[in-house]
Amino acid sequence: MENITLAHGNGGRLMEQLINDVFLNYFDNEILYQKNDSAILSEIEGEPVISTDSFVVNPIFFPGGDIGKLAICGTINDLAVSKATPLYISAGFILEEGFPIKHLKRVVRSMANAAQKANVKIVTGDTKVVEKGKGDKIYINTTGFGSIKEEINKDDDIKKGDKVIINGTIGEHGLTILTERKEMSFKTSIKSDCCILSNFIRKVLNRTEGIKFMRDPTRGGIATVLNEICDRYDVGININEEDIPFQKEVKSLCKMMGLDPLYLANEGKVILIVDEEKSEKIVEIMQFFEKGKQACIIGSINQSEEGQVCMKTKIGGKRIINKLIGNNLPRIC
Amino acid sequence: MENITLAHGNGGRLMEQLINDVFLNYFDNEILYQKNDSAILSEIEGEPVISTDSFVVNPIFFPGGDIGKLAICGTINDLAVSKATPLYISAGFILEEGFPIKHLKRVVRSMANAAQKANVKIVTGDTKVVEKGKGDKIYINTTGFGSIKEEINKDDDIKKGDKVIINGTIGEHGLTILTERKEMSFKTSIKSDCCILSNFIRKVLNRTEGIKFMRDPTRGGIATVLNEICDRYDVGININEEDIPFQKEVKSLCKMMGLDPLYLANEGKVILIVDEEKSEKIVEIMQFFEKGKQACIIGSINQSEEGQVCMKTKIGGKRIINKLIGNNLPRIC
Repeated sequence: MENITLAHGNGGRLMEQLINDVFLNYFDNEILYQKNDSAILSEIEGEPVISTDSFVVNPIFFPGGDIGKLAICGTINDLAVSKATPLYISAGFILEEGFPIKHLKRVVRSMANAAQKANVKIVTGDTKVVEKGKGDKIYINTTGFGSIKEEINKDDDIKKGDKVIINGTIGEHGLTILTERKEMSFKTSIKSDCCILSNFIRKVLNRTEGIKFMRDPTRGGIATVLNEICDRYDVGININEEDIPFQKEVKSLCKMMGLDPLYLANEGKVILIVDEEKSEKIVEIMQFFEKGKQACIIGSINQSEEGQVCMKTKIGGKRIINKLIGNNLPRIC
Repeated sequence: MENITLAHGNGGRLMEQLINDVFLNYFDNEILYQKNDSAILSEIEGEPVISTDSFVVNPIFFPGGDIGKLAICGTINDLAVSKATPLYISAGFILEEGFPIKHLKRVVRSMANAAQKANVKIVTGDTKVVEKGKGDKIYINTTGFGSIKEEINKDDDIKKGDKVIINGTIGEHGLTILTERKEMSFKTSIKSDCCILSNFIRKVLNRTEGIKFMRDPTRGGIATVLNEICDRYDVGININEEDIPFQKEVKSLCKMMGLDPLYLANEGKVILIVDEEKSEKIVEIMQFFEKGKQACIIGSINQSEEGQVCMKTKIGGKRIINKLIGNNLPRIC
């Protein structure tokens, strides 16, 4: 059989075959082999952390990754920015009738590779099939499970003067998806920054002090994360346009397409709020690693009563970076 | 705004409003209020257990329940049959553009009610929006997280003579969905048996010994679960047709529609494999509770070399109950 049929989702023989040939084959681990509807794990130390995300990205294959890699990286990174060590992940598939099984295999292989990089096991799963026209090839939910052993900073810890750090250039993932979707008439070399951040973050955490908050600026971009920080901690944030790292091509393409890179999704970036005094040291340590090579300070916490994100532009002006309103950029992740 | 728009999935203001008005409002708990991309939980005792399921049932509202109730019950019951105590659950929504927000509220309220009955907290979530025609109203993934404190029976514990028990009548959920979908010209009183089984199962476990294996016969019905048991433990199973409990109306409707109730999904049933000597006592204790009132022994383990499920029919014949092959009954759950 070359394509997914409705019978692949009915609990019978074809589904069993799909599970054995595809999922067990690539996700191969002893817990999955329990073949239960639940995965029974070893006892864990520390506070458990759960994160869930559904992935509906269109197109499902894109430069730099695919929906499978994204589904693992996205959820693992959400755990990592909570200072959790990712341990296990579950995968729920919603397949559209007619989806080629070879494409499913490609996606599942990507998931297996990404999970291996993050040192997590895909321990349980579920497959549903919907009729043609009731889905779009493949949707994946991943739910990640990790643990936190260290002490977490208290929420009131963020204060005026704290620095805002990012580990590298922004906008690549969102721009990749949008240019792929628009079928641009020219070739670009831009590719998604989609990657596993947990090892990098763990190494930085082990070598530094003063990291108060982390968040990965995915859907809605860094503009959205910075606004969330303002809401959450009742602070304002100043950023400097000229400090924000971009790839040259991202900048020119954004200009051409009328896109604001501050709102474009990233899938391999992390925003950190850190103690002012320790900020230089943290950047230095981040730069030591591949995924932090271009780490830099892009702004700082102030205490504006309005709780706004304010960007000092290159020509010396000021621009308020608002939350995204009514902009239709879905299926980016 | 009355309907879901693409902008409800872009990470901006509309999405924030949806999260506050709908999800935080109904799922109300302190962990969810952390408003992180991850939920940080209290340390747990025992072995952690994870179970995941995506729900794509069509129609989303049906007699006896809706996709929201189903999404909580299905995942909680998967944990419960592993002897786990369900603790937390995550919810991932894939909404179709144009889906009425009042329907979303109804679904989310059902989820909240079911979670409350199971004494679990919905601690983290995610919302994606897909274009009209790329989904079907609403798909929900739930991933449940629980713990097992007691000792689990070893796999080789199942042997010839062990009894097969079910807690009540079969086929209602599957038949409800199919009759709803076929828009039958007459009224039936059949409704889905969809319910939370965790409290019932816990009470039975606390009062009995000798329960070796449990599984909820959802997609694929009891025929599928019994075949899975044969594969897993390398045994055969005999069941007696006249011992299998049915509602009268289910029986006659199945006859009329040419359906085999053994393959119809159940969402409030559990199959148990128990020690022969303790089986009568276990049935008695199950019958003590509302959800076990009609509990009965329907068969036993044998050691047929073929590892088949064999049913003794009412007229004294024998019928092999095979795995489901190529039958298109998707979107039942």
